Amino acid sequence: MQRFVSSIEDTPFLSLCCQTQLTFLLCVAAVAWEAGKPLVIEEVEVAPPQAMEVRLKILYTSLCHTDVYFWEAKGQKPIFPRILGHEAAGIVESVGEGVTDLAPGDHVLPVFTGECKECAHCLSEESNMCNLLRINTDRGVMLSDGQSRFTIKGKPINHFLGTSTFSEYTVVHSGCVAKINPLAPLDKVCVLSCGFSTGFGATVNVAKPTKGSTVAVFGLGAVGLAAAEGARVSGASRIIGVDVNPKRFEEAKKFGVNEFVNPKDYDRPVQEVIAEMTGGGADRSVECTGNIDAMISAFECVHDGWGVAVLVGVPHKDAVLKTHPVNFLNERTLKGTFFGNYKPRSDLPSVVERYMNKEIELEKFITHEVTFSEINKAFDYMLQGASLRCIIRMDG
Amino acid sequence: MQRFVSSIEDTPFLSLCCQTQLTFLLCVAAVAWEAGKPLVIEEVEVAPPQAMEVRLKILYTSLCHTDVYFWEAKGQKPIFPRILGHEAAGIVESVGEGVTDLAPGDHVLPVFTGECKECAHCLSEESNMCNLLRINTDRGVMLSDGQSRFTIKGKPINHFLGTSTFSEYTVVHSGCVAKINPLAPLDKVCVLSCGFSTGFGATVNVAKPTKGSTVAVFGLGAVGLAAAEGARVSGASRIIGVDVNPKRFEEAKKFGVNEFVNPKDYDRPVQEVIAEMTGGGADRSVECTGNIDAMISAFECVHDGWGVAVLVGVPHKDAVLKTHPVNFLNERTLKGTFFGNYKPRSDLPSVVERYMNKEIELEKFITHEVTFSEINKAFDYMLQGASLRCIIRMDG
Repeated sequence: MQRFVSSIEDTPFLSLCCQTQLTFLLCVAAVAWEAGKPLVIEEVEVAPPQAMEVRLKILYTSLCHTDVYFWEAKGQKPIFPRILGHEAAGIVESVGEGVTDLAPGDHVLPVFTGECKECAHCLSEESNMCNLLRINTDRGVMLSDGQSRFTIKGKPINHFLGTSTFSEYTVVHSGCVAKINPLAPLDKVCVLSCGFSTGFGATVNVAKPTKGSTVAVFGLGAVGLAAAEGARVSGASRIIGVDVNPKRFEEAKKFGVNEFVNPKDYDRPVQEVIAEMTGGGADRSVECTGNIDAMISAFECVHDGWGVAVLVGVPHKDAVLKTHPVNFLNERTLKGTFFGNYKPRSDLPSVVERYMNKEIELEKFITHEVTFSEINKAFDYMLQGASLRCIIRMDG
Repeated sequence: MQRFVSSIEDTPFLSLCCQTQLTFLLCVAAVAWEAGKPLVIEEVEVAPPQAMEVRLKILYTSLCHTDVYFWEAKGQKPIFPRILGHEAAGIVESVGEGVTDLAPGDHVLPVFTGECKECAHCLSEESNMCNLLRINTDRGVMLSDGQSRFTIKGKPINHFLGTSTFSEYTVVHSGCVAKINPLAPLDKVCVLSCGFSTGFGATVNVAKPTKGSTVAVFGLGAVGLAAAEGARVSGASRIIGVDVNPKRFEEAKKFGVNEFVNPKDYDRPVQEVIAEMTGGGADRSVECTGNIDAMISAFECVHDGWGVAVLVGVPHKDAVLKTHPVNFLNERTLKGTFFGNYKPRSDLPSVVERYMNKEIELEKFITHEVTFSEINKAFDYMLQGASLRCIIRMDG
């Protein structure tokens, strides 16, 4: 694959901000032209960043279920052609007007949701659901001018989640970019920009298990295993993995999961099974499947008096959570979380530091690696259930 | 009404513990012989306290909806004849074997739920749902021997909630008795043993509103107004009262409620009305009606990102709470509480102190007072919706 603009170093004329405003870059991107059809590597023009935007050189991106979900476009608005991708790491190539906290050369994680630092959510200590830059799955353009920064021979290509990291270069709102330790290996920490942080944060920031406690994790995909990693790091002594796929149990041991429940093995609700195993219920549960029955089980499996259940998985739009209110009155708590309650810009750098300090392990999440030209293999691995995370090297 | 044993002072022979174990007391009690029929003042024999029990001289009791609920016995197991009553204050008359932390003369609040200080719940900082002494509405006898301590001419009369405070003397498990400051006026602090603490604790211990926040309170009865008092004490700046009875709004102002919503005034769900009033939702809500639709509204009316809804009201046994799980995923929290999360013995003395320090106001909850012989009037006031709390003076 020919590289049109291969690196910042090759384009010294980009170093002056006023010039970058005028400069289009030509690079390659993997374009989803149609729902469910293989991505096509295409030459795309990437417009310069506008006010409060940055243009990033993506070095590594990984595939997340959300990419697959919107690529399949079953049940949600099909927006094509589109450049997918949102879990990635890269380097700032140029910055638009008004961007003061990022500069070319900064190592960053683009994030599918942002932090304006000014709205009620950003000013709240509890929320990370920025009013301005909150995830928007239906928007295929930039927020500021309603235009795409990607074109192919003049024809606009839609953005995805404000990140579109399946491109050598992409333009992102500066509020959706976390500046991280430049020593961090980008081929590892790229997974922090979505899946890992979503699961890990659900446990450490929201469920907050105490040392020696029991945590049930529903769904042993990458997000659920990251939730288990959060339980392990928190010192939970029993980490009960719940999954209908028994193949996942062996791998889950690496993530601290030390007991397993397959709901298919029982003729009674799994919450009853867990209550029996634990003398009344788990101290905490984290639901990472999005299946409505699993959500209800995750709530009802926690101990009365102190149990906290945290919902992470995204449900079907028509799903209804039903439970008897006495389950609440018996002092159970049900919470939901979005991106593990991390504020992207304020909090992600510290998660990178936890990795650098060897508190958390990311290597075990990375089961596959492909070159950019092989990106469709990453989709195959995920669809086969073979991968947790497949890293896509943009220089390959 | 003749008093058979009028006070501890009149019965000096009771002062030795070993003797009290053998002594029956004769006194008067208000007996519910049948569901929904006026209570009858009867002469009853009160057996001495057995191991870990205490016999209390009740000085003041107040009527709570829960008494009325089990007196009406619509929908729950009818247990008659029964001595109702659970919100009260009194003095320890004698103690059974093994009771070391209470002595005759101690001023106490009997509580409908207990604290053994040994079970997992009592050892948990979060729970007050003691395994041994948790509320049991169906038990009409003492825990230790399955017998009643009340008899009328030898015929056992059922206990209620382990307290049965509609009697001059009653026997209670020592784990259900909070020893309080002897200077506290018992005709006021008696309301702390159920209703006030349930609502107040729901706000201050569970919802935990911050200074300047917005709190919606569903149901402006005594418990709801206590929840509002909790919001007032916490420094909430907007306290929105929600009730279908507009007459309650004027009185609610005394409790810090400064905005009112009557769901009947709107043709759209009250959660939408509150979201509009508050720019997205209340910071906290406390549901004190037990109505399932109000529960759902209370949850859905809190702000995404940080909103916390707390359920207090006891629902119908067949009620089902239904909501879209995305309401959770948008970072709302739903919790339930039981007795305001107060551990009866450990925590109630400090609530009494908050009253003594004039932090909380109890006088405004006490709208009526009757003598013991007039106890049925207290039922009338409550059934008419005329009273918040009616104090029943046992010496009258």
